[in-house]
Amino acid sequence: MSEAYTPTQRTRVVREPQRAVYDRAAAYKILDEGFICHVGFVVDGQPFVIPTGYGRAGDNVYIHGSAASRMLRNLDSGIAVCFTVTLLDGLVLARSIFNHSMNYRSVVVLGTAKAVTEREEKLEALRLLSEHILPGRWVESRHPNEKELKATTVLRLPIVEFSAKVRQGPPMDDEEDLSFPTWAGVVPLRMVAGEPVNDPGLEPGRTVPPYAKQYRRNL
Amino acid sequence: MSEAYTPTQRTRVVREPQRAVYDRAAAYKILDEGFICHVGFVVDGQPFVIPTGYGRAGDNVYIHGSAASRMLRNLDSGIAVCFTVTLLDGLVLARSIFNHSMNYRSVVVLGTAKAVTEREEKLEALRLLSEHILPGRWVESRHPNEKELKATTVLRLPIVEFSAKVRQGPPMDDEEDLSFPTWAGVVPLRMVAGEPVNDPGLEPGRTVPPYAKQYRRNL
Repeated sequence: MSEAYTPTQRTRVVREPQRAVYDRAAAYKILDEGFICHVGFVVDGQPFVIPTGYGRAGDNVYIHGSAASRMLRNLDSGIAVCFTVTLLDGLVLARSIFNHSMNYRSVVVLGTAKAVTEREEKLEALRLLSEHILPGRWVESRHPNEKELKATTVLRLPIVEFSAKVRQGPPMDDEEDLSFPTWAGVVPLRMVAGEPVNDPGLEPGRTVPPYAKQYRRNL
Repeated sequence: MSEAYTPTQRTRVVREPQRAVYDRAAAYKILDEGFICHVGFVVDGQPFVIPTGYGRAGDNVYIHGSAASRMLRNLDSGIAVCFTVTLLDGLVLARSIFNHSMNYRSVVVLGTAKAVTEREEKLEALRLLSEHILPGRWVESRHPNEKELKATTVLRLPIVEFSAKVRQGPPMDDEEDLSFPTWAGVVPLRMVAGEPVNDPGLEPGRTVPPYAKQYRRNL
């Protein structure tokens, strides 16, 4: 899992190369903390970028196709995609505007996404997606029936060509700016879950399950 | 500002059309709350999706080019991009897996991004970017010098062809699932700022400014 990885020309990080992470285990850790990706694909020369949920199983990511119906037209042969996950960790306030930055962790996977057509793999992919986004929910939900399975598109993207980029820590000011009279540091940012809100039609006596009450990603 | 807007075939929302918002003011509200976009562009037929900061001024968004050096090669003539902003508001737990969803607000802008070359517009775009991400910071920072201005790429994308998509509220279960024995509702999600962290090299006596201490987006 933690073998080094040699980037291709397409996934080699060009800008700020010192932030590049080509370690598969590090990339998977980022993928496992996130659950929203932005998928890019091309239709008639025009790029489209659509947010959607995802899950990971081994060296594949599974993408819920429902949010990207535009890209599902020619899926039999597969479609070239860019799959990007970004976790934002903070605003980095340097003395100079130029050195302002953000702390973040991101993964980019390039490849060909293919529709999952086999029934058992599709059902398992939906379980993975569900468990990735909200662990514990699958067994307490009404599972997909045949009609719903058919109406759901799931794409499989092998994690072959990828890169990760990470910036953490304090600002990096130029030496001559260190005495500039301003505050410098980091404003940490994170996603938090609020108190769960009952469905207005909830049957009396049903209480919020622990996986909803204690929801958090960055464990 | 709040005129109705007729989508093009490319920006008409195909999937879950009832979530579509074609109102310019509503889209701008989403753009003004967010500050990270995912920009898609195409190189040799391969889509790339890169996260980066942005700002808005009237009917243009300005994108910081530094995070997307791959797309900056042929910018003189402009480059076709998809600019997507996603705000995640919650996990929607229905009784059935099929009706699980997320609450979110997203905007997609299609168009041609061009590099800002004129010095004054570039400086103003950098100010807008800075003020969009962290209002109040610009006047307390050391401003870009000529060398830094030259080293910074800013792209301008006119907001002409766009769509917004919004899902809010409780789960929408099928009638026959309402008695399925599970909890249903929404787990709200939001981004919060933590306590600012001083730069280790901070000069004694400098205190955290209010715009960093009370940072929040959803006002």
